[in-house]
Amino acid sequence: MASEVGVVIHNKQVILKDYVIGSPKESDMFVTTGTIQLKLPHGSNGVLVKTLYLSCDPYMRGRMKKPLLPSFVPPFEPGKPLSGYGVAKVLDSTHPEYKEGDLVWGTTGWEEYSLIVAPVVLFKIEHTDVPLSYYTGILGMPGVTAYAGFFEICSPKKGEYVYVSAASGAVGQLVGQLAKSAGCYVVGSAGSKEKVDLLKNKFGFDEAFNYKEEPDLDAALKRYFPEGIDIYFENVGGKMLDAVLLNMRIHGRISVCGMISQYNIENPEGVHNLMMIIGKRVRMEGFVAGDYYHMYTKYLELVIPLIKEGKIIYIEDIAEGLESAPGALVGIFSGRNVGKQLVVVARE
Amino acid sequence: MASEVGVVIHNKQVILKDYVIGSPKESDMFVTTGTIQLKLPHGSNGVLVKTLYLSCDPYMRGRMKKPLLPSFVPPFEPGKPLSGYGVAKVLDSTHPEYKEGDLVWGTTGWEEYSLIVAPVVLFKIEHTDVPLSYYTGILGMPGVTAYAGFFEICSPKKGEYVYVSAASGAVGQLVGQLAKSAGCYVVGSAGSKEKVDLLKNKFGFDEAFNYKEEPDLDAALKRYFPEGIDIYFENVGGKMLDAVLLNMRIHGRISVCGMISQYNIENPEGVHNLMMIIGKRVRMEGFVAGDYYHMYTKYLELVIPLIKEGKIIYIEDIAEGLESAPGALVGIFSGRNVGKQLVVVARE
Repeated sequence: MASEVGVVIHNKQVILKDYVIGSPKESDMFVTTGTIQLKLPHGSNGVLVKTLYLSCDPYMRGRMKKPLLPSFVPPFEPGKPLSGYGVAKVLDSTHPEYKEGDLVWGTTGWEEYSLIVAPVVLFKIEHTDVPLSYYTGILGMPGVTAYAGFFEICSPKKGEYVYVSAASGAVGQLVGQLAKSAGCYVVGSAGSKEKVDLLKNKFGFDEAFNYKEEPDLDAALKRYFPEGIDIYFENVGGKMLDAVLLNMRIHGRISVCGMISQYNIENPEGVHNLMMIIGKRVRMEGFVAGDYYHMYTKYLELVIPLIKEGKIIYIEDIAEGLESAPGALVGIFSGRNVGKQLVVVARE
Repeated sequence: MASEVGVVIHNKQVILKDYVIGSPKESDMFVTTGTIQLKLPHGSNGVLVKTLYLSCDPYMRGRMKKPLLPSFVPPFEPGKPLSGYGVAKVLDSTHPEYKEGDLVWGTTGWEEYSLIVAPVVLFKIEHTDVPLSYYTGILGMPGVTAYAGFFEICSPKKGEYVYVSAASGAVGQLVGQLAKSAGCYVVGSAGSKEKVDLLKNKFGFDEAFNYKEEPDLDAALKRYFPEGIDIYFENVGGKMLDAVLLNMRIHGRISVCGMISQYNIENPEGVHNLMMIIGKRVRMEGFVAGDYYHMYTKYLELVIPLIKEGKIIYIEDIAEGLESAPGALVGIFSGRNVGKQLVVVARE
């Protein structure tokens, strides 16, 4: 790479056209070619990286909105490349913690090469005997999300009844497997027969159902949880949450990871059954993975052996090339992806 | 009392006519005179009490409904006397823990004399140098509710911003004073100028407002909490909760005690801003006082000295006579009461 340093080269980028209202479309973004100087400014404190994999995550929808309220992540800037989690290779560094050749995962631009100034979330990748792309999923932010959201927020006990929505997604598939490893009874829901089959036959959920084929979600949950739900891992919100609230057990816990059914609606649906949390003493707690990154090393020590032994399976939906990134991102909001959606920008 | 034992006497009772739909009315109940034998059946395990004070509590609305779902408290039975918390004097007992002459508080019938079989919640009153009626409020279930709901669920820290709705009620007035004693900044809302004055001038809230005069609750909360809310003690639900969710701070806590604005509605209003709890990492937790009765003695040790020293004030709204009980109970759902609503059935 040394020969490239200082050279100005082409840099393909995914640009957000404007703030998005309603369901995002591929045409809300475009791919263009800019340029980038492959050398960091003198006196800077950053890293220059080559993007390998980009992660498509539901929380990114919030960043496409015109900000009405201050948010925990800043919005994207129209006319600029999107940013998000990714896996990358360091080409140049003026930051003491990173050096040329390091593999990293963390926040990067949706572009072939990215200049990361004062990196906040950027982990050096130490284990390379697992698929590198896993650092967008099971070994990255979604992994910490599943781990912390299940163990830290829900304090599961053996034998408890666990329900996971969006259960074949980047986080859900892992929550289900972690819950099984904790001795829980686990049911997942997803939006297609293919996904339901994965839940039952690949990920080892005890039961699974296609929510699109259930006109009465309350009845469906009563069928799968005749004793009620101890733990709900919430990924979808709206009507599903309302049905779950009717089926929670006393002292149940709801880990609120996301509400993807609401992200493309300007006026979120009302949740009507919140009163249930009083008599049932339910705890609902929102969280973000970033609060738990101090547990990342501990999590890796747990999960990497499980991956290597084949005790945890992780399914990815891989789009090829930066040009496919807008479509891949848009797809997760209609459930087009099967498993963790990511984009390969370059393989090395 | 010995002379009365075994005698059959008249017993005035408040009877529920039928399950109630919508706002309860006085005419949903009627007062009648039955009879009762002032002696416990041989071999029974109960107490026979003379009712002194009856407590009017919002949760009782749920017991007037035809049960669609199993509830944490059983519904009232149409044609039978209501039941609820009260203060009473033991006239006869076949239960080893109670004897004739004991003063008790706990679950009793809405009648002059009541036979309590296998008492579950019935505390002997040990401290009688405070008003006996306080055992329907600050020294009874509402007291434990405020104490546990604030300290156990919210884990307050000095300097935090606390908001209490229905703040002049049986629980709210106490939560505000406990929060002040914990070094918090406390704002309360209520439904009349008189109540707002009480909050500011009697209970020592830092600020208070009349929610009925605020067309935009979000704007009102932003005015009183420019830095946001750390702790919300939830008594009302509905639109207020939606406005609060927009104003919670990161890692805020919502103690869900009740949602009185929703109790008379067949289809509860939707809460639209629940997504806020994700980015703000908010914990919402429902609870019932009954789970914390093991802390009752500890609570009394804290609160009785504060009452005697005048450091905690407790305002009661006292209705005279069992005949006034239906009106007193109905009144709490429209906020007619000022402070803890109770009914004097007899003074000794």
